[in-house]
Amino acid sequence: MNRSVEMYIVNKNRMEEKITSFSKHGDLCNGGITRLSLSPPALAARAEFKKRAEALGMTVETDDIANMYATLPGSEPGLKRIVMGSHLDSVNTGGNYDGVYGVLSSLEVIETIVTDKIQHRHPLTVMVWTNEEGARFEPAMMCSGIVLGKFTKEKMCEVVERDGVMTFGEALEASGYVSDTRNRLNKDDYLCYFEPHIEQGPVLEEEGLEIGIVEGVVGMVNYDIILEGVSAHAGTTPQNYRKDALRAASKIIMDLWDKLSALDSKLVFTTGQIQCKPNIHTIVPNYVKFTLDSRHQDMGVLTQVVDIIENLPKDVYGCKLSYEEHWGRKTIQFNDQLLGYITKAAKDLGLSYKDMYSGAGHDAQYVSEMLPAVMIFIPSKGGLSHTVVEYSSPDQLANGANVLLNAVLAADAEM
Amino acid sequence: MNRSVEMYIVNKNRMEEKITSFSKHGDLCNGGITRLSLSPPALAARAEFKKRAEALGMTVETDDIANMYATLPGSEPGLKRIVMGSHLDSVNTGGNYDGVYGVLSSLEVIETIVTDKIQHRHPLTVMVWTNEEGARFEPAMMCSGIVLGKFTKEKMCEVVERDGVMTFGEALEASGYVSDTRNRLNKDDYLCYFEPHIEQGPVLEEEGLEIGIVEGVVGMVNYDIILEGVSAHAGTTPQNYRKDALRAASKIIMDLWDKLSALDSKLVFTTGQIQCKPNIHTIVPNYVKFTLDSRHQDMGVLTQVVDIIENLPKDVYGCKLSYEEHWGRKTIQFNDQLLGYITKAAKDLGLSYKDMYSGAGHDAQYVSEMLPAVMIFIPSKGGLSHTVVEYSSPDQLANGANVLLNAVLAADAEM
Repeated sequence: MNRSVEMYIVNKNRMEEKITSFSKHGDLCNGGITRLSLSPPALAARAEFKKRAEALGMTVETDDIANMYATLPGSEPGLKRIVMGSHLDSVNTGGNYDGVYGVLSSLEVIETIVTDKIQHRHPLTVMVWTNEEGARFEPAMMCSGIVLGKFTKEKMCEVVERDGVMTFGEALEASGYVSDTRNRLNKDDYLCYFEPHIEQGPVLEEEGLEIGIVEGVVGMVNYDIILEGVSAHAGTTPQNYRKDALRAASKIIMDLWDKLSALDSKLVFTTGQIQCKPNIHTIVPNYVKFTLDSRHQDMGVLTQVVDIIENLPKDVYGCKLSYEEHWGRKTIQFNDQLLGYITKAAKDLGLSYKDMYSGAGHDAQYVSEMLPAVMIFIPSKGGLSHTVVEYSSPDQLANGANVLLNAVLAADAEM
Repeated sequence: MNRSVEMYIVNKNRMEEKITSFSKHGDLCNGGITRLSLSPPALAARAEFKKRAEALGMTVETDDIANMYATLPGSEPGLKRIVMGSHLDSVNTGGNYDGVYGVLSSLEVIETIVTDKIQHRHPLTVMVWTNEEGARFEPAMMCSGIVLGKFTKEKMCEVVERDGVMTFGEALEASGYVSDTRNRLNKDDYLCYFEPHIEQGPVLEEEGLEIGIVEGVVGMVNYDIILEGVSAHAGTTPQNYRKDALRAASKIIMDLWDKLSALDSKLVFTTGQIQCKPNIHTIVPNYVKFTLDSRHQDMGVLTQVVDIIENLPKDVYGCKLSYEEHWGRKTIQFNDQLLGYITKAAKDLGLSYKDMYSGAGHDAQYVSEMLPAVMIFIPSKGGLSHTVVEYSSPDQLANGANVLLNAVLAADAEM
């Protein structure tokens, strides 16, 4: 560590203890959790968050969609709030870091400021977003989406839980965390937004780096690619009479790997889902549909991806190829000033880091349309997330919290 | 037509009328039927069969698994019976020819013999096999399999219907067609077996031929091929870190087409079923399993298929390849003497024909282990079967019945 200036430091053990304590909410006794949004374990996690925040002298408010805002007053009450946080819900059989780390590192920053009596001008708010994962109620990032006008609250309240009958609206009402719409995050009361998160990918670990400075969220395109052939009996149809949709799909998947890999080393693309009809081992498939998800920070590269898809052959071994374009998003750029604060914090703390884009979506991407926003990544062991083996070490947890602490204090001093 | 000898001829209109009449049992009003084994429409078809057979002076017996045997006495009562037939059950949304044609062409042969007072020495039996399709109660060819000792009756009686709660044993009891085990097909009472059937493939139609002389049923091997990779987030995992099981499966499917196509033009192989996990569009697949079904009349060629599978690379783009061998069957050869009778009949009738193997399984393959057996194919429009658009023309139906009639009479005279 080469600290050229005086830096503030969180308590590593206390940071780790927070993670351990919250890991009991939805504990699967195999290292992981299931803590679906607004479920009993998720409500228990909210209750612990509220208790801990109030013990630090924070005031806890909620809005009409159960987003939580715990605020510590600053020395200049008229100033806007600096907000930091993430979410407490998990996917089914998830881990102890995705989302919750962002909330608890923010809480550790506040605990350090309170305990070490660090001066700050602005009120400091720790946020918990409702239903980031979308694992119980689709879609993901539902409540930041509602706040930013991506979805209407009315429509979202009608969403029925997966594997059940309760609507999101009913779950909200039953939660006890619903309050005033006027408490929603807004640009009159808030100054800027920080979201720490695990990387969910292998890059930091593979490159031996401690911090990811997240410049933005990559743009993406999503397609269904469809091959239509003719079903035929496996025993009675000579090969040269066949129009086999699975053979054609395999060819196109191989071709997409060849063509897309040649575009740019930072391009990612995934054929994650495949459907085959009639999917009987004695019948030649007449219909295969597979998904293509492709992401890159440079929209120009994604335009080339679209070109490649639009120029796929329309006849593949006698099968008709077609495609359907689904939702995409443009690349989101985080705020340069905040990026400067986290870069300086990492540098001054002597931490190794790299500038990178998030390939996954986060609430921060919606917030960035309203407030200056930024994200901080820490390494994920094996690049794994959404699994019970998700892991970041106590040092890595503390590193991210330290960057957050010093960046927030820089913003507090300068913005 | 170049008839060098006097030939017997069925009544084409009467043949067509039989098909039309039976097509009402399970009629879907779209040209096809659903007539699952022992279902109400299948029982109605059995009742019509029994009524028509008795009207021709036949005696109808059943055995303990509801196989039906309608017998017309011959002029020499001590002789064994010549048996011909197929099945009356269909798959879900099937057609009016698969199976039922074998029964009704046999019935038309008897009607011609009775009406035209054609002399014959042996008793002539028309058979209806119970549950050939296996569409309601698995497996296919269940009751010829029981008679030939492939499956035990006890175990089969416990099979529960697809999409329901009734067992095969309960359906048998409720059918009203259960009688004595001693009535089962056996080699003491029966001389030889003929089974006419639609081709279910495109070869006869494509080559403009009228009759398929079925030399046997091709041997087959069945495998599951499994690729195991690592699941990863679609947005956060660079391509070069991925172990994508669907990419690996696509590569192996393409390689199998290359390698197997090079073996022999008569080899057929099918990758009909694929399973992908987790099958979510934003997650790199970590597991893909697909089936390989391969058939050829020469077991030496199938040995080469097995060699190719056993020598597939064990690592495909970082994914582990493994395979599981499932059931296979050796090539079944039909009886040369009976093949001679049907070849002579086709030739003498002036019909174009070719020797071919059946790629699909039929009750005849089991029967061939007990009695001299043979099959006769007629063309299938578009090579299609197991579909509501299954079709063979009135001329094609009559051609097959004429070959059967003259071959049966040749066997009656000479065997």
